Order: sequence, then structure tokens, then C-alpha cells
Amino acid sequence: MKNTITYFGLPGSFSNIAAEKFNNTNDLLSCVSLEEIFQRIGKSENDLGVIPIENTLHGRVVESYDLLNKYHLFITNEVVLRINHCLLTINNEISVDEIKSCFSHYQAFAQCENFFGKHPGIIQIIVNDTATAARDLSKTGDSTSAVVGSKKAGEIYGLTIYKEHLENHRDNFTRFAVISRRLKKDGEKASILFSVKHVPGSLSHVLSSIASKNFNLTTIESRPIEGKPWEYRFFVDLIKPENGNFNTLVEGLEDKCESVKLLGIYSQSPVYET
Amino acid sequence: MKNTITYFGLPGSFSNIAAEKFNNTNDLLSCVSLEEIFQRIGKSENDLGVIPIENTLHGRVVESYDLLNKYHLFITNEVVLRINHCLLTINNEISVDEIKSCFSHYQAFAQCENFFGKHPGIIQIIVNDTATAARDLSKTGDSTSAVVGSKKAGEIYGLTIYKEHLENHRDNFTRFAVISRRLKKDGEKASILFSVKHVPGSLSHVLSSIASKNFNLTTIESRPIEGKPWEYRFFVDLIKPENGNFNTLVEGLEDKCESVKLLGIYSQSPVYET
Repeated sequence: MKNTITYFGLPGSFSNIAAEKFNNTNDLLSCVSLEEIFQRIGKSENDLGVIPIENTLHGRVVESYDLLNKYHLFITNEVVLRINHCLLTINNEISVDEIKSCFSHYQAFAQCENFFGKHPGIIQIIVNDTATAARDLSKTGDSTSAVVGSKKAGEIYGLTIYKEHLENHRDNFTRFAVISRRLKKDGEKASILFSVKHVPGSLSHVLSSIASKNFNLTTIESRPIEGKPWEYRFFVDLIKPENGNFNTLVEGLEDKCESVKLLGIYSQSPVYET
Repeated sequence: MKNTITYFGLPGSFSNIAAEKFNNTNDLLSCVSLEEIFQRIGKSENDLGVIPIENTLHGRVVESYDLLNKYHLFITNEVVLRINHCLLTINNEISVDEIKSCFSHYQAFAQCENFFGKHPGIIQIIVNDTATAARDLSKTGDSTSAVVGSKKAGEIYGLTIYKEHLENHRDNFTRFAVISRRLKKDGEKASILFSVKHVPGSLSHVLSSIASKNFNLTTIESRPIEGKPWEYRFFVDLIKPENGNFNTLVEGLEDKCESVKLLGIYSQSPVYET
């Protein structure tokens, strides 16, 4: 039986591209809300979801982090895309100064802030995802409108790739997580979520314990705990040493944390072009 | 001689409110770009700037963090506002379903995503800052348009406070930094920026050193280093113990870090309502 992989946005969204890079033999299902993906995967033993979690230019997708805290799901894979934001139009017979409005996701606009700073005449309109923007433009056929989205979205919806690489910097990577009800056993990388007592040294105590076992911490993010202003929970990504065991590591952290959860074990992703 | 305090956005922006809460006797100057604020303060011995750095719902303002890394300026104060996002209109004679378009900053839209999810008929249009949106609406007088902005922006530009608290959660705080060319000597809180060698335990080694001197780490953020994919620099906020000295602490970290910089010493801010 094939499993279904649910991703954020319509076909042509960057999450859709990430889902295909991850696995192109399964059925892919579009979903317009991150929380609906978590709800759907929570009900199904075998299905998987693909969500964006971190962009190098714009920072964390905090909604995804907060949902990873709220729902009891695991990360089974990561997928890293180099994001090429294209300006998509109906045709290339207009000059950029004739473009009156542009539709996209707010994170895409944030990653292309320099371009829109240079073209203040273009009105930026937020839609749910970049591929929805592309589909809607192809429907209206408005030659004075544009979309920021993937090259793939341009191809799917028959739009012109008017200009590539609108992003502020070519080093524009988005890391996606594949989520599932099942915790995978193998992989050199893991994500852990924990909170600590609000006393000096408690975070350092946890990180020292991790370091003393030769696990390498690659990223760390603190997120405010709702209803406890200025208290934080921490999300860390770790690479294990040879013969290291993530389950044993997390068990050893239990008495040092208020709460600790192994969010997932997975392999490091190569960078895929888009 | 009075100093000038430059803030992001037009009068009525949340940075403008933060600047007034910080000091309402100085001359306030509006500026439409975060980088221009850094450039301006870098040229003036006595002037100050006010920039947003962190929001509890939407996360870090990564542009501010990256500018704190790029420019040699210091944080001299923090100002914390509880953000009350108001729906501002020309009058209250329309129903919410008759509102066709809404103008605001993309971060404001991100903080009010639930409201706009319930009202998909309202087109969301990005402008440079929430107060610019309010000023422009008051100029056009379009009764089917709205703005997400502060109550103060509504009052300044003569708009109707159609609805308060559009934000997803009432615990919606933004932390602003006051920046200056001068490093302040007094304060119980500090921000430090550092990078470490890309080997296991190097981050933990730095944090252990901080903890061993009884400084309490309140937040930590990793930001990718441009041109070095998957290497990070770290921003931490610390509270010092009685008789603790931040300068001595940072000197002691120099041999443990690739680079380390004291970003500023300041007092903790109370929460101001908006």
C-alpha cells in the first residue's frame, strides 16, 4: 500500500518540491494549513507530512516549531532546498515598471525585500502560499500582475519565468521536516525539544551533558512558553558521534530538564536546487 | 543639547511608541528602513535608534540581528511592548465582511494570521510599516479598506478603531532595542554575540563558562553565517549575578570563541501596554 505525503500549499509550492525530492513514488496531497497537516498525520499510522521549519534569510518558521511542541509527532527526515524565487508573469512583453501588483506568501516577500525596495511601485499582496498565487494569476490572466514563486509553479500554471533569483542573497536555503507518528531508529542527526528550570546554569547544565558525550549541537532556538512570559523552551539539532545513541542521550537528560522530548532521528539532507 | 531618537516607521508605528516609552523628552525622528537607522546612528556620537528585535508570536526580527552583527553599535536599553493590533477603518458603518482589502506590515499580518484565516475575503497588502498603512488609508478615505496597526496610529490619522486585539494570542510582546555608538556601563542584563569553532562541544564550552560564573542565560538564538552554510553565530541574553561584571565575562570568553562581542549592557524593561 502506498503512503500519502501531505505537503503545505498547492502543487508547485516549495513544500511540494521538497516532498518530491524526498520521495517521488508516493501519492502527494496538497494541504493549505500547517496545523491541518499535523492533525491529518496524527490520525494516520503510515502517512507523512512535509513542513518548512527554517529559512536562512528569514529565520525560523515559528508556527512549525510551536506545532512540533503541541502535537505528538516525530521528524523522520529533513529536506534542504536552495530557494530560487522567480518573478512569474503572464508574458514577458512588459517592463518591470509596468507591473502593478505581486502576489505571494509573506515569507517569500520577506526573502525578496531588497527587490521590492527597489521597485516600490509594485503592490505586494499576501496569499496562502506561492503556488496558490501562481494558479490564481494564470486564471485571471492579468498581464500587469506578477507572482513570487518557484520555477516549477511557473511551469505548472503556464506562466512566464520573467526573472529568476529575486531573493536577497543566493545562500537562501529552506529546511523542511518530514513528520510522522513513528519515531525512526536510524540516522546521524536528531532534534530534541526541552525546557529547563528558570535558574542560572540550567541550560548550560543540559548542553554540557550533551557535549560530554561528544554529540555536536548544530543549531539551537529558544521559543517563549505560552502563558509564561520570558520563559523559554529550546529546540536543538544534534549530530551523534560514532556509536552514539540518541535514546540513551535523552534518557540521561530527563533529570536535568523540566521536560525533554526526542523530536526525531534522521539523516542529514543534501542541498537540492529548485 | 537634545539628542535625536530615530525609530522605524512613521509616527504611530510600534517602534515610535517604544521610542516614546523609552524617552519622551527628546526629538523623535521617523525612518523607513532598519539599515538606515544603523547608518545614521553610526555617524552620530549622541543619537539613539529604536529597532524591533523579537516578537513572542512571530519570532526574531532576523534583519535586526544581522544588522547588529554588521554594524559596530551597542544596545543601551530594551523596551518591551504588549502589541495590541487594531483593525483601523474610515468608519464603523460597515460589517467586517464588507472590508475588501487590508494594509499592514508583513509581521503584523503574521501575528494576526488566525483573524485573516477566518476572513479569507479580505485581501492582505504589505506596506513598509503599520503607521504608513494608517496614514495612506486616511488619505484615500476608502471605506472598504482597513489597516492593522496601533491604537495610536488610528488616533493620529483620524481612523476608527474598528476592532482591537486581532493578534492570535494576547501574550503578544515585542522587544525593542535602543542602539547607540556608546557602550553603557550599568545594567543587570547584557547581550553577547559570538561564534565558535565547528567542533563538538564548542558551544557548550562557552555556555558552561558563562554558567560557572553564575550568569543566567535567558535567550539564545543561532543565525547562519553568510557564505558558510550550516555554520552559525549565536546571540545570547544574560542576567548578571550580584557583583558580576559583563566586561570581565566577555574577556574570559575570548579564548573559547572564534569571535565574541559585547553587544550591550542595559536594564530589564517593564511591559508597556499599547
